[in-house]
Amino acid sequence: MTLKIYDIVVFLYPGMTALDAIGPYEVLRAIPNARIRFAAKTRGPVEVDSGFLSLHAEFSISEIDSADILLVPGGNSLPQLDDPEVLAWIRRIHETTRWTTSVCTGSLILAGAGVLEGMEATTHWSALPILADFGAKPCERRVVRHGKVVTAAGVSAGIDMGLELVAMEAGEEAAKTVQLIIEYDPAPPFDAGSPAKAGEAILNRAKAILTASQARSAGA
Amino acid sequence: MTLKIYDIVVFLYPGMTALDAIGPYEVLRAIPNARIRFAAKTRGPVEVDSGFLSLHAEFSISEIDSADILLVPGGNSLPQLDDPEVLAWIRRIHETTRWTTSVCTGSLILAGAGVLEGMEATTHWSALPILADFGAKPCERRVVRHGKVVTAAGVSAGIDMGLELVAMEAGEEAAKTVQLIIEYDPAPPFDAGSPAKAGEAILNRAKAILTASQARSAGA
Repeated sequence: MTLKIYDIVVFLYPGMTALDAIGPYEVLRAIPNARIRFAAKTRGPVEVDSGFLSLHAEFSISEIDSADILLVPGGNSLPQLDDPEVLAWIRRIHETTRWTTSVCTGSLILAGAGVLEGMEATTHWSALPILADFGAKPCERRVVRHGKVVTAAGVSAGIDMGLELVAMEAGEEAAKTVQLIIEYDPAPPFDAGSPAKAGEAILNRAKAILTASQARSAGA
Repeated sequence: MTLKIYDIVVFLYPGMTALDAIGPYEVLRAIPNARIRFAAKTRGPVEVDSGFLSLHAEFSISEIDSADILLVPGGNSLPQLDDPEVLAWIRRIHETTRWTTSVCTGSLILAGAGVLEGMEATTHWSALPILADFGAKPCERRVVRHGKVVTAAGVSAGIDMGLELVAMEAGEEAAKTVQLIIEYDPAPPFDAGSPAKAGEAILNRAKAILTASQARSAGA
């Protein structure tokens, strides 16, 4: 018996946030017969936002013409909106997917490709207004599903999204099993993971850091 | 004014689990003046346990002789215990660190290097008995600190460990700020992240998957 491959494609681009991709990847690999392809505009190392790390793209996006799941991570995502080749590729893959997904500001790339027009979606808390500018309906939930499009909130939310996708594709038992394998029994020492919980002082501090980081990216 | 670099070194090796390294990396980068170096026995792409992804080691371990934080991820870690060069390097770096840390079965490498002798430490739930065999005192806690050695439980526990380290090195405000930046407000759709919570059926399923994966690694 030959089992069909379950095809997962992760889009990599310079300036992306590593955990946006690696969190859900570590969960989605539990889908039976999963094959996960990391693809960028050109093959080879892709430097992430910190400048300290590269993830290796084994494929060029031109080599990939379909996916069961397409995953678009966030980070310094806006420059991708100026690349018609990337946007056309996302639209083309989206037509073939069972699930088109994003983490954090990856949803801005989906929006720029026209995938989120009029749809409920989410993104990093700091980018919710931009998502509205792109014609989507921003939702402040950790994971938002609208039809076959699933968007997750900032960075670490991709892990929770991954579990929901595994549950839908392979059942709750499979999702719980991978949760146990990655020992995902979170116990953060603080409760500051959302703007409401963090409070105003921490929120302002985070905004200042994000603004400085965006300025550095723009100047790079 | 020249600020001293805060030096973080992440050890990469073939068969490691990507999230073990990327989870804490994404948090630790919030330490002021952090420089993070990813180092393997030889520079270049390092294939992780799934076979689907490579992380790029920009440094060879021979180029690195000290660190403020050394981070050793888990995964298929036991083969590293057969490499005297790796173990000697870990012992050498450990002498220079402020914190020597591991995630998941990365603690088995620390133990093999002799760093955990007689110390309280943790690892992935499935490897706690092995940790005892190596002379450590296994603890079933998510993050265990003994002197300057900090070990985290399986895979995703590295994110929680990262937050504790940032709090110790840069203060609670800094830790809460990075928690907000990575929107770490976990909301897993299931509560199956520890053996006790998952229950026996899921636990047996996870054990079977881990055993099969170890057999594949041993045969590779």
